[in-house]
Amino acid sequence: MRLRRLHAGLLIALGLLALPALAETPKATPTAAELIAKSKPSEWRTPDPANLLYMQLPQGRVVIELAPDFTPLHAANIRTLVREHYFDGLAIVRVQDNFVTQWGDPNDDDSGDKSKLKPLGSAKRTLPPEYTRAIDAKLPWTPLPDGDVYAPQVGFSEGFPVARDPASGREWLVHCYGMVGVARDVAPDSGNGSSLYVAIGQAPRQIDRNLAIAGRVLEGMPYLSALPRGSGPLGFYAQAAQRVPILSVKLAADLPAAQREKLEVLRTDSASFAAIVEAKRNRHDAFYAVPAGKVGICNIDVPVRSAPAANAGHG
Amino acid sequence: MRLRRLHAGLLIALGLLALPALAETPKATPTAAELIAKSKPSEWRTPDPANLLYMQLPQGRVVIELAPDFTPLHAANIRTLVREHYFDGLAIVRVQDNFVTQWGDPNDDDSGDKSKLKPLGSAKRTLPPEYTRAIDAKLPWTPLPDGDVYAPQVGFSEGFPVARDPASGREWLVHCYGMVGVARDVAPDSGNGSSLYVAIGQAPRQIDRNLAIAGRVLEGMPYLSALPRGSGPLGFYAQAAQRVPILSVKLAADLPAAQREKLEVLRTDSASFAAIVEAKRNRHDAFYAVPAGKVGICNIDVPVRSAPAANAGHG
Repeated sequence: MRLRRLHAGLLIALGLLALPALAETPKATPTAAELIAKSKPSEWRTPDPANLLYMQLPQGRVVIELAPDFTPLHAANIRTLVREHYFDGLAIVRVQDNFVTQWGDPNDDDSGDKSKLKPLGSAKRTLPPEYTRAIDAKLPWTPLPDGDVYAPQVGFSEGFPVARDPASGREWLVHCYGMVGVARDVAPDSGNGSSLYVAIGQAPRQIDRNLAIAGRVLEGMPYLSALPRGSGPLGFYAQAAQRVPILSVKLAADLPAAQREKLEVLRTDSASFAAIVEAKRNRHDAFYAVPAGKVGICNIDVPVRSAPAANAGHG
Repeated sequence: MRLRRLHAGLLIALGLLALPALAETPKATPTAAELIAKSKPSEWRTPDPANLLYMQLPQGRVVIELAPDFTPLHAANIRTLVREHYFDGLAIVRVQDNFVTQWGDPNDDDSGDKSKLKPLGSAKRTLPPEYTRAIDAKLPWTPLPDGDVYAPQVGFSEGFPVARDPASGREWLVHCYGMVGVARDVAPDSGNGSSLYVAIGQAPRQIDRNLAIAGRVLEGMPYLSALPRGSGPLGFYAQAAQRVPILSVKLAADLPAAQREKLEVLRTDSASFAAIVEAKRNRHDAFYAVPAGKVGICNIDVPVRSAPAANAGHG
């Protein structure tokens, strides 16, 4: 019924319905919602407001968490661009189905007028390519032992999906759904954060290690994933009027505390996160005839929630 | 540039631009478009019109190819429903971000009036669950040797992504982006094809072997993937007015030949398909610093094209 009628699924999720089939399966796997409800406050972290971008679209707000431990130079340059209001008035210029939604300066596109490019201000024009980084034993690391097609090792660090190659000693953020990458030209140092994209379909893992990943969308993915697809080549919007305007991008740290989102992210090194992963890997309930037995790195959504009301006043 | 400016990428794709970097990479990997352009007519198949559904939405037409070699009873029941106009006037009732778009009878939902359920006519109310089938050596099988997190073996058969378990002797269609599944209630035999869903995000492989997959969307995915997400539980549309009406679903075989789409699907046992897979696995060009080396089963889109004009009159 997860994929059929709503009522039974919802009632089971809420624990309100004891179906005969459930009675035969006394230890039904808890749902993610149930595990989240049982989690401890200490298992959640409040992202650093210096790492949170609020991108205001006409439809609503997108919240992005930067990942400075993985792409520090890009995080710094994006903060500079944001603080100098670079993105305000720019637009979503491209939505390619099952691939990416991309935003930046429309004059950077094929049909754009290069003489009208918005200045980058004091932000850097080029950056060293931070596609991978040396494995840092000081960063938290929660391995996912289920294997991966694309990388020798995968796991989570600081709330992000990460791949590792012990042979090369490198690690990198991976292009799961909702991860935000830095667009670039052919030159590896040409990505500077002024044009960003987010993965909106099957994880495009083939671009891992070829682009810098700046962070992850914590809230508002549907504002980016449900947009009309562009009819131009590569999903660029063929007409300017189809573009979605970016009203503003602000750094949470630059806003008064009262205007900040009260978001918390489940720690990926917590027991509750491990339980959610296991529930996804081996689901036993009335609906699932066969548990998967495995779970892919990009099939796990790291939970995000609004801080419980008791803490809301402390933000 | 694939993820930045359009012009250079397009010119490279069209072979119109010799960048210095390309000159240093004399054997740049051909693009899928280039490989398709070089393919032979015999490498393409025209799907059997008895297996093609045309779902007409207000925005456009979705074409679905049924997979009767994998789910024959469901294909037959869906054909019966279609021929008796079951779907005409029903609706898309659910869009859950990064999961599925689902359609069927709105009165089958939680808020629905069960007394107003559309009759299933001569279609069967229940069907044996065709989640997996015995491996059939007579079906074409193109293994993908790159490995898979969820299944012992993966590959392609008749244009569909398939998993196999030699130990159990079973094979099954997998929930890649664009695959169409049969929604059901808790009872395994409760899926009958009257409610269908399509995967619109990261492949939800955890439901493999737990639901019957009826086929694949060949054309029109953006009409299903770019819809507003439902705000109700599980992504159901909270208000009836948000649902997307299904104007009609017809079987191509029931239409005059002139009204049929002239679609061809690249044979997954063809040399050109193998070349496209390899180009995805190991891309060497001016943009890619590091080829992936591997490719996931759900990262490969089986190409679909309009039949070349020379053949259009033969349809």
